[in-house]
Amino acid sequence: MIITIVGGGSTFTAGIVKSIALRKDELEVDEIRLFDIYKERQDKVAVVVKWILDEELKSGIKLTVTYDEKEAYDNADFIFAQMRVGLYAMREQDEKIPLKHGCVGQETCGAGGMAYGLRTIFPMMKVIDDAEKYAKPTHWILNYSNPAAIVSEACRVLRPNARIINICDMPIAIIDVVAAAMEIKDKQNIVYDYFGLNHFGWFTKIEYQGKDILPDLRQYIKEQQILLPAAYLKDKQALASSNDKNRHTKGSWYYVWKGVYEIMENFPDKLPNTYLNYYLQAKEFVEHSDPNHTRANEVMESREANLFNGIDKYLETGVIDEKVFYAGSHGDWIADLAIALKNDTKQRFLIITENRGTIPNMPYDAMVEVPAYIGKNGPEVISRDPIGLFEQGLMMQQLNCEKLLVQGAIEGSYEKVLQAFTLNKTIPSMSVAKAILDDMIEANKEYWPELK
Amino acid sequence: MIITIVGGGSTFTAGIVKSIALRKDELEVDEIRLFDIYKERQDKVAVVVKWILDEELKSGIKLTVTYDEKEAYDNADFIFAQMRVGLYAMREQDEKIPLKHGCVGQETCGAGGMAYGLRTIFPMMKVIDDAEKYAKPTHWILNYSNPAAIVSEACRVLRPNARIINICDMPIAIIDVVAAAMEIKDKQNIVYDYFGLNHFGWFTKIEYQGKDILPDLRQYIKEQQILLPAAYLKDKQALASSNDKNRHTKGSWYYVWKGVYEIMENFPDKLPNTYLNYYLQAKEFVEHSDPNHTRANEVMESREANLFNGIDKYLETGVIDEKVFYAGSHGDWIADLAIALKNDTKQRFLIITENRGTIPNMPYDAMVEVPAYIGKNGPEVISRDPIGLFEQGLMMQQLNCEKLLVQGAIEGSYEKVLQAFTLNKTIPSMSVAKAILDDMIEANKEYWPELK
Amino acid sequence: MIITIVGGGSTFTAGIVKSIALRKDELEVDEIRLFDIYKERQDKVAVVVKWILDEELKSGIKLTVTYDEKEAYDNADFIFAQMRVGLYAMREQDEKIPLKHGCVGQETCGAGGMAYGLRTIFPMMKVIDDAEKYAKPTHWILNYSNPAAIVSEACRVLRPNARIINICDMPIAIIDVVAAAMEIKDKQNIVYDYFGLNHFGWFTKIEYQGKDILPDLRQYIKEQQILLPAAYLKDKQALASSNDKNRHTKGSWYYVWKGVYEIMENFPDKLPNTYLNYYLQAKEFVEHSDPNHTRANEVMESREANLFNGIDKYLETGVIDEKVFYAGSHGDWIADLAIALKNDTKQRFLIITENRGTIPNMPYDAMVEVPAYIGKNGPEVISRDPIGLFEQGLMMQQLNCEKLLVQGAIEGSYEKVLQAFTLNKTIPSMSVAKAILDDMIEANKEYWPELK
Amino acid sequence: MIITIVGGGSTFTAGIVKSIALRKDELEVDEIRLFDIYKERQDKVAVVVKWILDEELKSGIKLTVTYDEKEAYDNADFIFAQMRVGLYAMREQDEKIPLKHGCVGQETCGAGGMAYGLRTIFPMMKVIDDAEKYAKPTHWILNYSNPAAIVSEACRVLRPNARIINICDMPIAIIDVVAAAMEIKDKQNIVYDYFGLNHFGWFTKIEYQGKDILPDLRQYIKEQQILLPAAYLKDKQALASSNDKNRHTKGSWYYVWKGVYEIMENFPDKLPNTYLNYYLQAKEFVEHSDPNHTRANEVMESREANLFNGIDKYLETGVIDEKVFYAGSHGDWIADLAIALKNDTKQRFLIITENRGTIPNMPYDAMVEVPAYIGKNGPEVISRDPIGLFEQGLMMQQLNCEKLLVQGAIEGSYEKVLQAFTLNKTIPSMSVAKAILDDMIEANKEYWPELK
Repeated sequence: MIITIVGGGSTFTAGIVKSIALRKDELEVDEIRLFDIYKERQDKVAVVVKWILDEELKSGIKLTVTYDEKEAYDNADFIFAQMRVGLYAMREQDEKIPLKHGCVGQETCGAGGMAYGLRTIFPMMKVIDDAEKYAKPTHWILNYSNPAAIVSEACRVLRPNARIINICDMPIAIIDVVAAAMEIKDKQNIVYDYFGLNHFGWFTKIEYQGKDILPDLRQYIKEQQILLPAAYLKDKQALASSNDKNRHTKGSWYYVWKGVYEIMENFPDKLPNTYLNYYLQAKEFVEHSDPNHTRANEVMESREANLFNGIDKYLETGVIDEKVFYAGSHGDWIADLAIALKNDTKQRFLIITENRGTIPNMPYDAMVEVPAYIGKNGPEVISRDPIGLFEQGLMMQQLNCEKLLVQGAIEGSYEKVLQAFTLNKTIPSMSVAKAILDDMIEANKEYWPELK
Repeated sequence: MIITIVGGGSTFTAGIVKSIALRKDELEVDEIRLFDIYKERQDKVAVVVKWILDEELKSGIKLTVTYDEKEAYDNADFIFAQMRVGLYAMREQDEKIPLKHGCVGQETCGAGGMAYGLRTIFPMMKVIDDAEKYAKPTHWILNYSNPAAIVSEACRVLRPNARIINICDMPIAIIDVVAAAMEIKDKQNIVYDYFGLNHFGWFTKIEYQGKDILPDLRQYIKEQQILLPAAYLKDKQALASSNDKNRHTKGSWYYVWKGVYEIMENFPDKLPNTYLNYYLQAKEFVEHSDPNHTRANEVMESREANLFNGIDKYLETGVIDEKVFYAGSHGDWIADLAIALKNDTKQRFLIITENRGTIPNMPYDAMVEVPAYIGKNGPEVISRDPIGLFEQGLMMQQLNCEKLLVQGAIEGSYEKVLQAFTLNKTIPSMSVAKAILDDMIEANKEYWPELK
Repeated sequence: MIITIVGGGSTFTAGIVKSIALRKDELEVDEIRLFDIYKERQDKVAVVVKWILDEELKSGIKLTVTYDEKEAYDNADFIFAQMRVGLYAMREQDEKIPLKHGCVGQETCGAGGMAYGLRTIFPMMKVIDDAEKYAKPTHWILNYSNPAAIVSEACRVLRPNARIINICDMPIAIIDVVAAAMEIKDKQNIVYDYFGLNHFGWFTKIEYQGKDILPDLRQYIKEQQILLPAAYLKDKQALASSNDKNRHTKGSWYYVWKGVYEIMENFPDKLPNTYLNYYLQAKEFVEHSDPNHTRANEVMESREANLFNGIDKYLETGVIDEKVFYAGSHGDWIADLAIALKNDTKQRFLIITENRGTIPNMPYDAMVEVPAYIGKNGPEVISRDPIGLFEQGLMMQQLNCEKLLVQGAIEGSYEKVLQAFTLNKTIPSMSVAKAILDDMIEANKEYWPELK
Repeated sequence: MIITIVGGGSTFTAGIVKSIALRKDELEVDEIRLFDIYKERQDKVAVVVKWILDEELKSGIKLTVTYDEKEAYDNADFIFAQMRVGLYAMREQDEKIPLKHGCVGQETCGAGGMAYGLRTIFPMMKVIDDAEKYAKPTHWILNYSNPAAIVSEACRVLRPNARIINICDMPIAIIDVVAAAMEIKDKQNIVYDYFGLNHFGWFTKIEYQGKDILPDLRQYIKEQQILLPAAYLKDKQALASSNDKNRHTKGSWYYVWKGVYEIMENFPDKLPNTYLNYYLQAKEFVEHSDPNHTRANEVMESREANLFNGIDKYLETGVIDEKVFYAGSHGDWIADLAIALKNDTKQRFLIITENRGTIPNMPYDAMVEVPAYIGKNGPEVISRDPIGLFEQGLMMQQLNCEKLLVQGAIEGSYEKVLQAFTLNKTIPSMSVAKAILDDMIEANKEYWPELK
C-alpha cells in the first residue's frame, strides 16, 4: 500500500504525513512517497517528514523522496495532490495585481484565483495522466490543489474518466471554528448540510447530538460581531477593544472571519463559507487590504520562513527545534477520505463533483460542492431540493466564470478568458477586467497557455 | 374600436396618438381615450393631441380625456400602458441616490430601476384589474411601461392570465440607429434575431435584403469608435474632434452609445443592447456621470419644459408653435403591434414573455425578450438554441435580481429586496447595497410597499 | 414509545409485531396498537399477536387493539400502514376482470393495480390526516400499503408535507431469493443499487463482500432457467423435470420467477424486479393464468384460511397449533427502517420518493424507487446517472399512467382514468381499456370515487 | 436552378413534378432531375414526366433522367428525397410478418415501420453525403421519405449539420379531409396547431376565417361516426348502410379513418393523427386486417399496376391514356416549402425537427413534429406549452423506441433493436417482439445492417 504526495515540498506535507502515519492500521500503508518539481524545498521538508515517521512515531513506514514521475506513481494506491504552481512568488502577483486595479486580490477568488487556475490546469492533467500510466488501475487521486473549483472543472472537461476525488478543507476548517466557538470537543460528531461551488457555498444545517446548533451559533455571531478561529479566540478581548481599523494590527484573516458576521447580519438563514466575503463584501475587503503587503507576504514571512529557516538551522547544527519539527495532524480529513475509499466506511464528506441533478436548479454539468457518502466505489452524492434565487444567481455567475476560464485555457481564447474576468463579481467592469488580465498575462508568461 | 392610453399625460402621448391616427384604416379606430392620475399634465397634453386629431390630421377620431377608470376602460379594445409612477421628480431620486454611493444611477438599470420597479408593480396590477373589469373580454393591454423587466415579471407572478403583451422600444431604437449608420432608408425591411432579458440582451443577426449586415456594422463601429443615433450623426465630426471628456459637452446618451463600441471591441460577435453598457462598464459610466445633474434633469429641462411651457404659452396667446405641436409618429411600433393583433398579420416583434423552453438553458419561468410572430391569438414565440456561458451567467444574475425584487415587493420582505440589490451587477458589495436601499426606502415612502 | 399498525387484521401483522418485539431494545417500544376497520379479522389476529408478545417472547410490550382513530393514533411515534381496502374479495375482482378481457390480472400491476389504487387513495389520506391530528408532531408513517406507486403519488399530490416514508418489501424479497440462490447466509451484508418506479425497477449492481455477484447470478439464472425463492428451491429438481406447463402444478408465482430468466436472457445487463414480468411478458402471463382461479383464490384458500381457521380452532379448543401461532419475523425490514429513523443509523434502504433530480432524465415530480441513507431527519436520497432509453421509455409510460389515475381520482374524471388504462402496457387497446374500466366501475361502486 | 428528385421511379413523381412546373415562376426552375437506383421503373415514370413538362404544360423546364450520383446532384439547389428502399415487395413483408404474430402490420408504424427504418437509414445518409459533395453549398434537402420519424432521428444523430428539412404530408392530407368534410374550398386558409412525433401527433386547434372549427368538426365526426376523405365521401351512404364488417368491402383505409372517430369519442379534445389509430386501437386494427392481403397488395394491384401497365401500353401503342398521364398536382405542399426557403416567405409548415425546448416536457434531443415559419435561413420553430401526461407518456414510449432502433442500427446491436421492438405499443410482449424481429432479420438480410 503506497501513498504518493504530489507537492511534497509544501509546508503542509509534514502534517499530512503525520495524519497518515497515525492511521497506519486502517490504511495498512507500507510506503509514503514525496514527489515535487521543486527539489530544494522538498529535500528540506523531507528531513522533517523522515524524523516524524522514523523518530517521533517509529511508524515503520518507508519514505521515498523522488523527482521522477515513474518512481513517484509506480504502483501507487493513493495520490494526494497538493500542487502550488509558481509557489508564493506567483501567489504574491495574484494578490497584488488585482489590488493595483482596486479589486480583491486573493489566492483562489476573483482575478487572483483565475490566474492561479490558468497556471494549474495543465500540470494537474499531467498528474492524472501519470497516475493513469504508472499507478495501480484501482488508484484514487485525492485532489485538494487550489483553486479547486477551476481545477476540478478542468478535470471534468479534459479527463472525465479520471479516478479523482476533488475535495476542499475549508468547510472542515469552518466547522472547526464553529466547534471552538460552541465549545464542542468531539467535532467529528457534528453533521452538516452544505451546498455551493467550491469556496462559494453555504451551510444550511449544522447538527450536534441531534440538535440544530445554527440558532445558537447565530446568536453567538450576533453578540461577538465576528466568528473567530481558535487562534484568535484567546485574543478576542484585545481584538474587540482595539479601535485600530488598520489591517496590520488585526491580520488579513481577521476581516475574512468578520465577513461572516456582516453577511449573517443581513442574511441570517445560512452560515456562509468565509470565502463568500470576497464576493459579497468585495469593496470593503479591498479597503482593508494593503496593496503592498498581502497574505502571500504574511505566509512567506511566517509559515514558510519558520519551517525552512528552522530546517536550515537543524542541518547546520543538528539540533531539533520542536516548533519546527512537531507537526499537528492537520491532514486528518484527507487521510479519513482515503480510509473511507479503502475500507468502504460510507463516511460523509463534502466533495466537489459534477452536479448531474443533485441541485435540481443548477446545470447538469456544474461542478458543485455537496455532501456525499464515500465507499469503495467512490461517492454517493445526496440529492437536494432546489436552491434559492439569491444563491442560484450568485452561483451561476461564478460557475460560468469558471467554465469560461477553463474553456479559454483549453482553446487559448483571450476573448473567453476576458469574458470570465468580466463576469466575475469581484471585478467592477469590462475595462478593469481587461486591464487586470493584460497585467496578469505579462506576469504569468512562463506559466499560462498562450491566449489569442 | 376604442384605444385607451394609460399615462395620457406623458410627453410621448402626442407621438403615439399620431401613429395611431395615421393607421386609422387598418386599426378601424373610432375613439382614443387618454387616462392619467396627473390631471394638470394630461389636460395640457390633451390640447396638443386634440389639435393633431382634429386640425392637423382631421382624423375624425373621437378624443376622450378622463380621470375615471370606468370611463377610461369601458368597452376598450386596446389599452396602451405607459405609466411613469412618481414622474421625473422620483426618477431624479432613482438616478442620484445610487450615484451618491458611487453606483450607476439609471432609470431602469441597477438600483434606480429597482426603485422604479417597486413603485410601478402595484399600479400596473390595477391597470390589469380595471381592464379585466371594464374593457372588452377580448381586450389587449400593450404594456411598455418601464422598468419593463420588473413590471412584466410581476405580471407573470400576480396576473398570469392577463391579456397583456409586454414590449420595449429600445431594440427598435437601436435598429433605427443601425439603419441610419448603414444608410438604410426602408428600415422596416431589416430582420433581426435577438435574445436577452429586457434592457439586457444581444442582437445575434441583422439582415437586410437577404444579407447579414453585422460585419459591415462591426467595421463601421470599429472605425467610428462609436455607434451614434441620427441626432448625433450630424455633429459627428465636432464630437470626434472634441477633446473634452466632460459629459456636459457630450450629453449622457453619448456615453451610452460609446459603450456599444467598447463592448464590441472586446466581444465583436454580437451587437449589445445599449443598456448592457450600464452593467458591463458600470465603473466607467459612474465616472462620466455628474451626481448633481442627471438625465432626469436633462429631460425636465428640455423635453418636459419645451412641451409644457409651449402649451402654457399657447393657452395664453392662442398662437401655435410648430415645434411644440408637430409630433413625430414615434409610436409606429406600438400601433403596428396593435394591427398585428387585430388583423392577424403575423408580423415579427421582439416581446417580453415567459421563457417556457424558448431559450433552453434559461429557467422555464424567466421573462425573456425574444422574437415572436404576432397574430390574433397573441404571440407565437420562436424557439432558439442554448445561449453562451457569458450571456447566461450575466442573465441569471440579473434575472434572479429581478425575481427577488418582485418577490420582496409581494411579500414585503426587506431581506429579499436587499438580496436583489446585493446581486445586481452595478452594485459592488452588500454593504453598499444596504446603504442605497435604506436611502431609497426613505425617498420612496409614499410609493413603495412596506418592507420588513 | 408507541407503534400503531394500521390494518391490524392482516395475516402479516403477527410477523411484523414479532420483528418489532425482537428489536425492543433499539426501538424502546412500550406499546403496540392494532387498528383496523374490519373488527372480526383483527380480533382474531390479535389473539396470535397477544400470544407472541406475552407468551412466546415475554416482551413486556403493551398491546392495544382498537377500532377508534383517536385511541389508535393518540401520541403515537410510528404508524405502520398496511391497509388492504376491500380485502381479498375485491382483489379477486381486480385479478379476474382484466383476465376476462384477455389482460394481466394482478394485485398491483395493470388494470388490477389501478382498481386497487382507486380504492386506496382516499383511505390513505385519512390515515395521514388522523396521524397529523392525534400522533406526536414528530411521528413517522411508514407506508407499505399497496399499490405503493399509486398510493405514494397520491400522497405527493394531496399531502405533500406528510411525515410519511413510502417503502416496498419486494426488492428485499428478491435479494432474499438472490441470497438463497448464491448461498449467502448473511444477506444483510449484500449492498445493491436499484432504480425504477415501485414494482417497476431494476437492480444495477449487487455486491457482497466487496465483489459484484451479478455475473455469478446471471450464470446461475442461465443454467437454472429460473430464479427461485427458497420455498421452491427444494423442489427444484421436481419442477425442472416436470413437463407439465399447467399453472396449477407450478403455482402462479412459479411463472413470475421464471419471467426473470426470460427477461435476462434478452437483457442480461440488469436484474429486473419480478413485477416487470407482468409488463414485458404480459401476453405469456395471461396464457399461464386461469381466469377462474387466481392468486387471490390461492391466498384465501391457503394463508388466509390457515390463519383464521387455526385461530377459530384454538378459540374452540384452547389448543395452540404451532403452525398457526409461530410467526416468522418477516417485518425485519420495516422495523429496521423505524430504528434508522429513531436512532439516526444512516442505514441504506430503497424508498419511494419524489425524484427531484435524483434520476436526471425522469421528471422532477416522478415518484421513484431509489436507494437512500435514512437518519432521523428522514431520507438522504442518492443521486444517480441518467438511465437508459429502454428503461426511461417504459417508466415514462407507467409513470404517466399512475399520474393520470391519481388525477382522475381527485378530479373524478372518467376521461383521465380511461387515459391511464389506455396508456398501460398490459392493455392492448383503448377499446379494451374502456371495457375493463366499465366492468371495474360496476364492481368497485362501493369503493371508488365517482367518475364522470 | 435545379431540383433533383431522389426516388424518381415513384408513382408519386409525376404529381410532384406537376406541382413544381405549375410554380415555375416562383421557383425559377430551369431543370428537374430524376434519380433512382431502379432503372426500369424510373425510365417508365420518366415517359409520363416528360409528357407533362413538354406536352401538357409546355413548361420549358429541362428534364434529366439519371442513375449517376454526380449527374443527379451536381450543382443542385433542391433535393426532394422520396426513397422507398426495397419497394413494395419489402413493404409487403413489413405488413405481413407482424400480422402473422398477431400484431399491427403497417408501413411506418410498429414492427413494419421499424423494419422499413432499418432499410432506409444508411441509404438516406448516402443522399446527404452525395448532396454535400456535389450540390450547391446552399442546397436544401427536402426529405419526405418514410418512415420519417426514424429517418429524421438518424439524420440528427449521424449528420447533425446536414442541410435537410424533414417533413411529412399526412397532417396536410388530414386537413384536406377536414376541409372536404367542413365544405371549405380555400383550404390554404386553414391555420392549425399540432404537436407530436411524426405519424404520432395531435391537432390542438384548427382555425378558418378566424374561427375555431374543431367544435363543428367534432360534431360532424360524432354524427357520421367516421371522418372520411373525399374519395369515400361520395359513397358515404353506401358505406354507412353496409353491414358488412369485412375489410375487403370497405378497404384498409376505411378503418384508419374510422379510428379517428373511435379515439375522439373517448378523448374529444384534440383531433388525432390517423396513424395514432394503429397504436391506440392496435388490437381492433389487427382484427380488421387480412394477413394474406395487405395494403401493399392493394397498392401493387391498383396504383402501381395502373401506372406501369398504362405506360407499357403507351410504349406499345403510342396512344396516351389520360387516366395514366394526367397527374394531379399532389406535390403542392413540398413545392410550397421550396418556395418558402427560396423566397423567404415565412409560410407556416409542420416540420420534423429537434425539440430543443420547443415542447418543454419532452427531451431536448427528441425529433418532434411542430409548426414553424420557414424562410431562407430555414425554420423558425414555435415554442409551445408543456403537453399533457397522456400524450407525453405515449410519445416517450414511441420516441425511445425510435431512438433505440437508430442506435441499434448504428451499433449493430441486436439487444437495442429488440428493446425497440419490445417497447413499441403495437407489440404485446418481449417474446412476441423477438419472434417478429427474428423473422424480419431473415426477410431483410439484403437490406439491414447486421445485428449482433
